[in-house]
Amino acid sequence: MQADVINKLRAIVGEKWFRNDQEALVAHSYDGTPMLQSLPEGVVYPSSTEDVSAIMKVLSEAHIPLVSRGSGSNLCGGTVPVQGGIVMVMHRMNRILEVDEENLTATVQPGLITAEFIHHIESRGLFYPPDPSSMKISTIGGNIAECSGGLRGLKYGTTKDYVIGLEAVLADGRIIRTGGKLMKDVAGYDLTKLLIGSEGTLAVITEATLKLIPPPKTKKTMLAMYRDLYGAARTVSRIIESHIIPATLEFMDNPTIRVVDDFAGLGLPLDMEAILLIEQDGDPETVERDIARISEICASESADRIEVAATREEAEKLLTARRSAFTALARLRPTTILEDATVPRSRIADMVLRINEIANKHRVTIATFGHAGDGNLHPTATTDARDAEEIHRVEAAFEEIFEAAIALGGTITGEHGVGMVKAPYLEWKVGEPGIAMMKGIKAAFDPHHLLNPGKIFAKETRKRVVIQHG
Amino acid sequence: MQADVINKLRAIVGEKWFRNDQEALVAHSYDGTPMLQSLPEGVVYPSSTEDVSAIMKVLSEAHIPLVSRGSGSNLCGGTVPVQGGIVMVMHRMNRILEVDEENLTATVQPGLITAEFIHHIESRGLFYPPDPSSMKISTIGGNIAECSGGLRGLKYGTTKDYVIGLEAVLADGRIIRTGGKLMKDVAGYDLTKLLIGSEGTLAVITEATLKLIPPPKTKKTMLAMYRDLYGAARTVSRIIESHIIPATLEFMDNPTIRVVDDFAGLGLPLDMEAILLIEQDGDPETVERDIARISEICASESADRIEVAATREEAEKLLTARRSAFTALARLRPTTILEDATVPRSRIADMVLRINEIANKHRVTIATFGHAGDGNLHPTATTDARDAEEIHRVEAAFEEIFEAAIALGGTITGEHGVGMVKAPYLEWKVGEPGIAMMKGIKAAFDPHHLLNPGKIFAKETRKRVVIQHG
Repeated sequence: MQADVINKLRAIVGEKWFRNDQEALVAHSYDGTPMLQSLPEGVVYPSSTEDVSAIMKVLSEAHIPLVSRGSGSNLCGGTVPVQGGIVMVMHRMNRILEVDEENLTATVQPGLITAEFIHHIESRGLFYPPDPSSMKISTIGGNIAECSGGLRGLKYGTTKDYVIGLEAVLADGRIIRTGGKLMKDVAGYDLTKLLIGSEGTLAVITEATLKLIPPPKTKKTMLAMYRDLYGAARTVSRIIESHIIPATLEFMDNPTIRVVDDFAGLGLPLDMEAILLIEQDGDPETVERDIARISEICASESADRIEVAATREEAEKLLTARRSAFTALARLRPTTILEDATVPRSRIADMVLRINEIANKHRVTIATFGHAGDGNLHPTATTDARDAEEIHRVEAAFEEIFEAAIALGGTITGEHGVGMVKAPYLEWKVGEPGIAMMKGIKAAFDPHHLLNPGKIFAKETRKRVVIQHG
Repeated sequence: MQADVINKLRAIVGEKWFRNDQEALVAHSYDGTPMLQSLPEGVVYPSSTEDVSAIMKVLSEAHIPLVSRGSGSNLCGGTVPVQGGIVMVMHRMNRILEVDEENLTATVQPGLITAEFIHHIESRGLFYPPDPSSMKISTIGGNIAECSGGLRGLKYGTTKDYVIGLEAVLADGRIIRTGGKLMKDVAGYDLTKLLIGSEGTLAVITEATLKLIPPPKTKKTMLAMYRDLYGAARTVSRIIESHIIPATLEFMDNPTIRVVDDFAGLGLPLDMEAILLIEQDGDPETVERDIARISEICASESADRIEVAATREEAEKLLTARRSAFTALARLRPTTILEDATVPRSRIADMVLRINEIANKHRVTIATFGHAGDGNLHPTATTDARDAEEIHRVEAAFEEIFEAAIALGGTITGEHGVGMVKAPYLEWKVGEPGIAMMKGIKAAFDPHHLLNPGKIFAKETRKRVVIQHG
């Protein structure tokens, strides 16, 4: 990196907030994704939109790549600086600028930690539903870049349903503002929704206006356990068909149940093929009625055991089972690869069976849990990055899993993003003309390919290995 | 138009479904917007995606503009063929292809009439909330192109919240598919949301997958009438601050009340400055509780009269007041211009007062009604297109109204779209870099500017006439 660029960046943010010592470079060479690492040439910490704009002007003039990031908790290699350049960390821009109770909006900076925001909002008697599992460390800006989901997505939607206005800096340093404190705005193309989930490849988000909603008055939690996988899957479909949309409708398969029970000592029955974790929230009468009806449906689909939490403490215990799934799986082997193939919710059982077939075929260990109500599954391989031959089999298995998801009318990623990991498969979902349009959008925003280069678009699309008919 | 192009189009759709007789050309030279007309050179009626693709290949090779449309009920000049070329009418592609009760989705063709779709869905015990006032004649494809709203937008959102997958034909005839029966999909940029509200300028929608939801179990309707405009506006904010999101929260000002009463003979008190029409739906206990609480808020904000409908018939009578607003206003003078400036909901009273000031200043008659809960107002001028001097004053007034909306943190259009009418004002909302990014997107999808040319982007941006500080 040229000394004059470094000097300009230091002049913008101050000596302390530009680093190119080895420790800083290594700390920002990877993210939450296993097995991906690449050193940046510098790390910069802006404190304002003006800083971001000035930094981006300098970098675009010098044609230096920029990777903007929050906590880097993504699982798609979305913030690995694979082409070097500068990593811009948004953590200093972490303020809640305003909570507007009349309009039910909050305006925040991108570096704000999601859980801190949620706690603040809840302390004011309001509700911001998106709750990615990473929320204790992830940032709102990262959630927007990846369009994060979470456990409450089925009833409440994901990040894109709650972002109604953005301030963002374009590749050349110009600042744009989209949307506002407006529930309706059709002034031109929807740039707000376009930037959500664009993974830092189109612009850097510097401020977001979020929609808040009234909190539900009460919540109830239950578990239903099945020896028959199809019984669990039919339960999911029948709950929705009965016109009940639960707040949470989560799934764990047998391998996950075994690991979770071993980890958390919950006394789960180890011979079950599936457990559903179900929560409903809302007004007390509605919640009581829905939970009673859901229990009936579970029983009629031959659930072997149904537990409804009577107290908040019992509910927490039931939630622990699902919440500890990833941690429990991560203990098993040195490397844990968490994927998020997604199918229409009616195809969950088919997808779980396909995942198991594929895992057996490739002799790899894959446990599956996830958001059953959304059809968003997290097949999770426990493996060892040091064993190249096994990793090759894991990758072959995931390739078939993506293919199977698409064959069932699904997608390669429900909430984790494309990044580097899914880029070779994107064309399978969106087709060649879809890729062409996306590349055209990219070129309009970032003609020199400086913003998070090497993400979303692959140099080479993978050939399909298997043809599935769903 | 070259004879060989006409022959090719006739070969694709059959003799009967290409027309260039004067009657067909005139019938497709205008839409729901007053004072805009331009003759096309031909009208074509495709019956399938393959027809659409073949037509668009022919037109793109010959560099002939294409305006795709449903019923042309838009109010922004969105489907006027202002650069001639071919109008493609989607009415033959009007089938409901599938209602999937397990996944709660419907897949439909774009020419389907919105109200017919809603009736069908409701007859199957399901619910599709977007209900634009034009729904008896408008099509689902038109609703998607314009991102239509409606009376239920406050609680349920607008068209963009219910479209989860699209099939569309690109300018050169290639077919793309976006999304699917998936509640979550982050595979690349969100082309689904980008096409919604793109007003036929990026692609032609040939199929849509729509999200359905369970219907509310019951509904209750009330009117609250105010001598004090601010009392009505504070009621709107206080309802939301009380954590109640009504299904409908509509507003009529005094000029609208007078006209509506004269039209429909409802015995409304003519000395009221504002009427709120409020509906809540959901589970019976919730609806009762919310309506009781809303009544308390209305009373504490000095509502002069509150009427809660005891029966469905009484509710229909109350709804008539709001529903007949446009029709009643349209009787007054030969030309009715309905706009949709939108502000944060906390600024409604300020906006109504500004509209009245502006109308007085320019000596024009503007009545205002609209979706108070969304901040989406419909200031409506009654005028006469034959009086050029008065029309000039009306246009000057609307220009100031758009400026006032933006100064209050609002937008130039909440649900009607940009089309030709708002194009000169778009830069006021999105700024020069916003326009530049939108033009870049347009160029990526439609490099030869053949799809609905002359819309969204103006040749010249209007100079601002007034600076407001909100």
